[in-house]
Parts: sequence; C-alpha cells; structure tokens
Amino acid sequence: MTDDHEPTPAEQAAVEDRVVEDVLASFDGTPDPRLKQVMRSLTRHLHAFIRDVRLTEREWNTAIEFLTAVGDITDDERQEFVLLSDVLGASMQTIAVNNRSYAGATEATVFGPFFVEDSPEIPLGGDLAGSAPGQPCWVEGTVTDTEGAPVPGARIEVWECDEDGFYDVQHSDGRVAGRAHLHSDADGRYRFWGLTPVPYPIPHDGPVGRMLEAAGRSPVRAAHLHFMVTAAGLRTLVTHIFVEGDPQLAIGDCVFGVKDSLVKRFEQQDPGTPTPDGRELGDRTWARCRFDVVLAPAGS
Amino acid sequence: MTDDHEPTPAEQAAVEDRVVEDVLASFDGTPDPRLKQVMRSLTRHLHAFIRDVRLTEREWNTAIEFLTAVGDITDDERQEFVLLSDVLGASMQTIAVNNRSYAGATEATVFGPFFVEDSPEIPLGGDLAGSAPGQPCWVEGTVTDTEGAPVPGARIEVWECDEDGFYDVQHSDGRVAGRAHLHSDADGRYRFWGLTPVPYPIPHDGPVGRMLEAAGRSPVRAAHLHFMVTAAGLRTLVTHIFVEGDPQLAIGDCVFGVKDSLVKRFEQQDPGTPTPDGRELGDRTWARCRFDVVLAPAGS
Ligand SMILES: [Fe+2]
Ligand SMILES: [Fe+2]
Repeated sequence: MTDDHEPTPAEQAAVEDRVVEDVLASFDGTPDPRLKQVMRSLTRHLHAFIRDVRLTEREWNTAIEFLTAVGDITDDERQEFVLLSDVLGASMQTIAVNNRSYAGATEATVFGPFFVEDSPEIPLGGDLAGSAPGQPCWVEGTVTDTEGAPVPGARIEVWECDEDGFYDVQHSDGRVAGRAHLHSDADGRYRFWGLTPVPYPIPHDGPVGRMLEAAGRSPVRAAHLHFMVTAAGLRTLVTHIFVEGDPQLAIGDCVFGVKDSLVKRFEQQDPGTPTPDGRELGDRTWARCRFDVVLAPAGS
Repeated sequence: MTDDHEPTPAEQAAVEDRVVEDVLASFDGTPDPRLKQVMRSLTRHLHAFIRDVRLTEREWNTAIEFLTAVGDITDDERQEFVLLSDVLGASMQTIAVNNRSYAGATEATVFGPFFVEDSPEIPLGGDLAGSAPGQPCWVEGTVTDTEGAPVPGARIEVWECDEDGFYDVQHSDGRVAGRAHLHSDADGRYRFWGLTPVPYPIPHDGPVGRMLEAAGRSPVRAAHLHFMVTAAGLRTLVTHIFVEGDPQLAIGDCVFGVKDSLVKRFEQQDPGTPTPDGRELGDRTWARCRFDVVLAPAGS
C-alpha cells in the first residue's frame, strides 16, 4: 500500500468532472430549450453540492429515506414538499426572483399552503372570523397604484389562523373561518374585522419538523395576516403583514417570509374603547391596524 | 411607469443575497457540525440554482408536483427517488466521491435497486440462473489484491435480469432467479454459469420515465452483470461488468454507470462448442467472459 496507489487530487477531480460531463451531455438532445437549460443547471448545482460536502453513501441513503418520508406524509391535505421548500427558503427565493421590487409598491412574500379558492365574500367592514376564536382586529387601508391613484374594486383576499394557530382547513370538519374576500370602494379604501394574528408552528410532526429539530431551528412562523390583492392592469400582490413587537420576529420566521416593510403596528385597545364602526365588544379587548396596499403595474 | 421604478441588477442581487444569508443564518445554532455543513452547502447550491435559471413560480409548482408524483409511486417495492438520483447522476457522483480510484483496483459503479440480501449460495461452477430465461454464460476469473496476491474465500454476490429485462423481484410471484453468491477457491479463482446480460429499461412508467421522455433521453441501461465482492481486510467492491459491442454503450447508459475498464468481451459460442465444465447445452448457443477482480485495501 504505497502512496502512488492513491489518485492525485487532480486525478480524482477529473473522475468527478467526467460524471458531471456525462450527465450534462445526456441532455444534449432535449427538445425544449428551457427544460434543457433547467436540467443542465440542476445537474451542475446538484453535483457541486455532492462534491463540496463529499457526501457519504450513508448520507445519500439518509437523503433518500428523508425524501421517501416526505412523500409518504404528503396527501391531498398535507403538502410536505411545499413545507420543505419553505423551510429551505426556496419558496421565498423563487418569489424574490419573480417579484422584482418596484419602487413604492408593497413587497410580496410567501403564499403558504393554506389559501383556499372560493372564499366567502364579505362587505366593507364585514367580519371574516366566522367561528374562529381570537381577539377582534380592525384592519383598514387603501389600495393605490404607484402613482398614488386609488384602485376601486380591487379584490382583496384575506386569510389567517385562529388564536390556537390553526387555519380552518386544518380542522377536519369542513368549517370555513378566518378567510374571506372583499372589494375596495370607489376611493380604493377597504376595512374589515379579522383576528389579531398569532405565531403558529408549521405542521412539524413529519420529516420536515424532525429536520428542523435536528437543525436546532424553530418551526414557528412569525404572526401574520395573509393578503392577495388583484386588480386589472396591476401586478397581483401576494403578501402578509406581520405584527410589530412579536418576539418571533427576533427568533426568526421559519420560512423567511418577513420583510421590514411588512411589519405593522397592531394597536391594542382597552375594553370599552369605541370601535370604528360602533360594534359592541363588551368587556373584550381589540386591536386595530392600518395597511395601505400599493400595487405595481402589471408586467413590471 | 418610469425606469427608476425598476431595481438595478445590484439592488435585485442584494434582495436575493439577503434571502440566502437569512437561510444560512438559520443553521447557526445547528448542534451537529456535519449537519450544519451539509445544510448550509445545500442552501447555497439550491439558491444558486433557482437564481441561475430564474426559476418561475409556475416551474416551482411543476417541481413540487413532480416530487409529489415521485413520492406517490414510491412504495416498498418501487423506489422512484433512487431512480431520480440515478438518472441525474447523483448516485454515480456519490460513488465517485466515496470510492476513490486506487491504482490497479477494479473500479466501482452504481449499486442499483435490485440487490436482495440472503441470495442462495452456489458452488464454484454452479448456475445462478434458476428459472430465469436467457443465453447461458460462463463467467470466470480471479480475485486478487492490488499486490497480485490471490484472495481465497472472497464472497462474490452476482445478480442480473433475465432475457426479458426483468429481475426476479420485479415479478410478483416471489421467485428467486438470476442471483446467487459463491466463494473464491484457495487460489482466489471463481467460476459460475449465469445469463448473458441484456439491456433493459429502468421502470419508466412513472414520473422519472416521463422526465426522461421529455428530456429526449433513453430509459435503457447498457447490458450488465452486477457484482459485489467482499473479503476481510479489503475494500468492498460494488460494480458491474458491461458487454463489449452493446449498442446501448454508444447511446448512453441512463444512470451513467459505465466505465471503460468495466466493458468486457463476452465471446459468443456456437451450438455444440464444448463447455468448460462439460455441461451439455444441446443445440443452444452460449457465451463466456473473463472478469478478474482486484480489490483495494480496506480503508484506502
Ligand atoms: Fe400563514
Ligand atoms: Fe441492473
């Protein structure tokens, strides 16, 4: 067993380069140019990862078992691959790549897995909480374009979890609560009652949760309220607002969705404080928040 | 809508860099240093891929749907994640990283999904085909170390598909055929009857097969015979031998397992040609192949 039995680093690199070149060449005949570009780039980065960390065969096995477990737990109601993308920041990076900041426009963030089509419509000033428990929260603002012109008739979808941290779809009884849509008025203004957002853990009883635990990471999302705002001629905005002072903002949002511009003041109101629309809340506290939405031009 | 609404390339890069930095920082508290290293490297390469190709949100959705489909088809008998790793060359690259070439030793290649523990033992010169149909093939050789010393008692596992391209485990009747193990003799020699290898497609009725089709790639593996050779004090060798003249060698092996040193001559024999052990094959053709195995030192 002499030294000259061992490959030099250059010889070893040549062996590994050859594998990469073989895989890249296998896509030479790919008819769709975009698919070819994506697969070749994926090949380069995947192989660079394996080579950089000198992935062991045991670790490769662990990776296969992990992905298999992610597949096992995924069904029509649980999307563990989306969670995986979220906690690796891949979702947020994809959003960053596709929603170039546009000066003055409200920033976008992750869509998340809890949006549902065909939410109930509420009137201006209506309540989206339904049967979801939580502190009442008055939210109001305007929808404008980046020139400051009001946007009437914008469709505003809002969804959020209850005070226990669960979205309606996480209950098995088919309830619809904590979600609705409404339309801005002729002056671009909107207002509604919802619930003051609370931090909640992403579903963490599966392989992604175990990965976060092994990594010493929190599975908790900073408190937030989801918005999707659409209007003709303007770029659809998918975003959240976050709660100033939420301790989870310092710990870190587990899916990297926070942007400073999206952190809003939720003003706590003592029991008996008159509400904006005269609603009687008895001895309950409530909160209020202002969120002005600015939409970028479509195609920007 | 003026130009100064658009971020400069440097501003956009800063937004994307910030996402990467946030994700890297989330692993600051990972207790296991190796896990921390792997997750940080994975983060860097995954985000570099998304940024390089400017992955669209629609493509991200396609990727999630693809992985979900890979998970759906995977069960105890079908491992589509391994297939995916194989056709992206990730399996072969992992082998390259972990089995550094050792001058004079036989090269390694992919393990594949069809090995089964507890194969039947056959004597030297025995037949591993069992009920598997195919052309009889005599295989013989020696097992030595890199100093040329014979290795007696090496355990030689051999497995292969039948002439229809199916391994025994791909049939649902529990048959054991086309696989066995034997031991080298006191002089390190071995010999057995098997089947002349034929090209076969990897299971391609699932998402990986659809991906290969979209990419214009063949799902076929070059004809091969699997070996795993173990002996005390020597590095376990997992490899195949390939068939000189197999047209699939030019088309390309779909899992990138071919190495020039592993392509062997399988000499076709006319009916009636005397066999090495006097076996009577009547009017059948047969083939013969020599494969000398050289094992690197353990821990090399
Ligand atoms: Fe959420
Ligand atoms: Fe095989």
